Amino acid sequence: MTSTANNHKTCKLALVQLAVGADKDANLANARTHVLEAASKGANLIVLPECFNSPYGTNYFPEYAESLKEGPSVKALSAMAKDAKAYLIGGSIPERDLTDDKVYNTCTVYNPEGELIATHRKVHLFDIDVPGKIRFQESETLTAGKQLTHVDTEFGKIGVGICYDIRFPEPAMIAARKGCFAMIYPGAFNMTTGPLHWELLQRARAVDNQMYVAACSPARDVSASYHAWGHSTIVGPAGDVIQTTDEKQSIVYADLDLAKMNEFRQSIPLNNQRRFDLYVDVSKTQP
Amino acid sequence: MTSTANNHKTCKLALVQLAVGADKDANLANARTHVLEAASKGANLIVLPECFNSPYGTNYFPEYAESLKEGPSVKALSAMAKDAKAYLIGGSIPERDLTDDKVYNTCTVYNPEGELIATHRKVHLFDIDVPGKIRFQESETLTAGKQLTHVDTEFGKIGVGICYDIRFPEPAMIAARKGCFAMIYPGAFNMTTGPLHWELLQRARAVDNQMYVAACSPARDVSASYHAWGHSTIVGPAGDVIQTTDEKQSIVYADLDLAKMNEFRQSIPLNNQRRFDLYVDVSKTQP
Repeated sequence: MTSTANNHKTCKLALVQLAVGADKDANLANARTHVLEAASKGANLIVLPECFNSPYGTNYFPEYAESLKEGPSVKALSAMAKDAKAYLIGGSIPERDLTDDKVYNTCTVYNPEGELIATHRKVHLFDIDVPGKIRFQESETLTAGKQLTHVDTEFGKIGVGICYDIRFPEPAMIAARKGCFAMIYPGAFNMTTGPLHWELLQRARAVDNQMYVAACSPARDVSASYHAWGHSTIVGPAGDVIQTTDEKQSIVYADLDLAKMNEFRQSIPLNNQRRFDLYVDVSKTQP
Repeated sequence: MTSTANNHKTCKLALVQLAVGADKDANLANARTHVLEAASKGANLIVLPECFNSPYGTNYFPEYAESLKEGPSVKALSAMAKDAKAYLIGGSIPERDLTDDKVYNTCTVYNPEGELIATHRKVHLFDIDVPGKIRFQESETLTAGKQLTHVDTEFGKIGVGICYDIRFPEPAMIAARKGCFAMIYPGAFNMTTGPLHWELLQRARAVDNQMYVAACSPARDVSASYHAWGHSTIVGPAGDVIQTTDEKQSIVYADLDLAKMNEFRQSIPLNNQRRFDLYVDVSKTQP
């Protein structure tokens, strides 16, 4: 870790594009191996994919769902973050809320001490029907979250969304305007939506908000019912792809440079030019 | 013109990537030639570039500015639309408002009868400073418009913005949610911002709003002080580039298929999935 003039540490981001199978314990062990590997390369902000402890599918969500308080995954993630001495955005897991007995697609976030510091439940459920290509209805077994999520870290604030959340511009607009320097999306696009929109949506969020955007996918498993697109990607505040990969298990790294981001924001000063006399500021107006 | 099941004519869009010089009369005559050529190929919605009757530059705006009521450009555009029997989105011209003596960057829109049916004054002025690459401050001589613009046509409603307006997501979000099937941006990106963002911003507006987006540039004139990027482009509701070109004078055509757009909107039904309980709908909330 290095220091910059304003005493902020450099944020070295790692996206762990994990190979996910049907064995939850094996998934947690594999996640641990890769999180520690990323930390050994200097990463201090590590991201796991959506649904990293379970196969992705509406039938699997209730079967794999666990309580954040009692289940094994939060314990394992907390230990990984602590042992890695890194912030960990723990992808997502199927969560069963014991108070309402509903199942959520939930991202948990940990600080380098292993403390759970934020929880994001996917707010936009993935319900689509592209005839002849893909039909998927998360709402068959999942319940949507009820809040947007921003996490305080020593690098600055980070917004978190999950997969389909990225199709909606407002969460990133709100995050950026409330001071987040990055939006991080654990996600599992597929072989239809992946080639169409995975990279475009990340670049759109980045260029419109002049912030870092990253999306972390599982590796593709052609023996599974759902084929993830892979291609975990990190995009810079100018909408440029900084780093990406193919569909195989791997780790994608990039240094996030907040000074460079602020310099870019000054050169094209969108933040001072928005016409909030003609349209409301979604970050300052409550529904 | 062909009819579809719901009796809407097919909308054949033409972007005239015009070569623009210092002679206003010659620019108007060249525009007329190309508008009539586009009409002869079946186009019934024709677009001219930003600042098509004048060189682009803060020093030129006051010099070339004219009144919409008394100047020659509106008369010429009206005649072009009427003779082409087509809707004409007349790029933009430097406009001098005789009531406040201010200069605006203004797009005028005509129906096939040659009637002026809408006026859009650029609402986001182009003030940027990318060190060592480009500095440009429209606000040195221009005043910003005070409203967003939607135009009723026989094909449906169309939103209009000018160039830098495309960097701001709200106008396109509002237009789409109020029923526009397309956002049309006369624009003149340059050799820095063009390669970086010209296509990305159009694709971002299209994919987020599942609408057609088109941007019409002047051809590049390397003898001018401002070098336009060119690359006039038409993007579909899935964020796909349908048609584009290089930097030379040319006309870019595409059929805009509203039935296909609506089918795509049903397959990924964003419009029913927005979480307006978590963030306001910018199209339904006044500042």
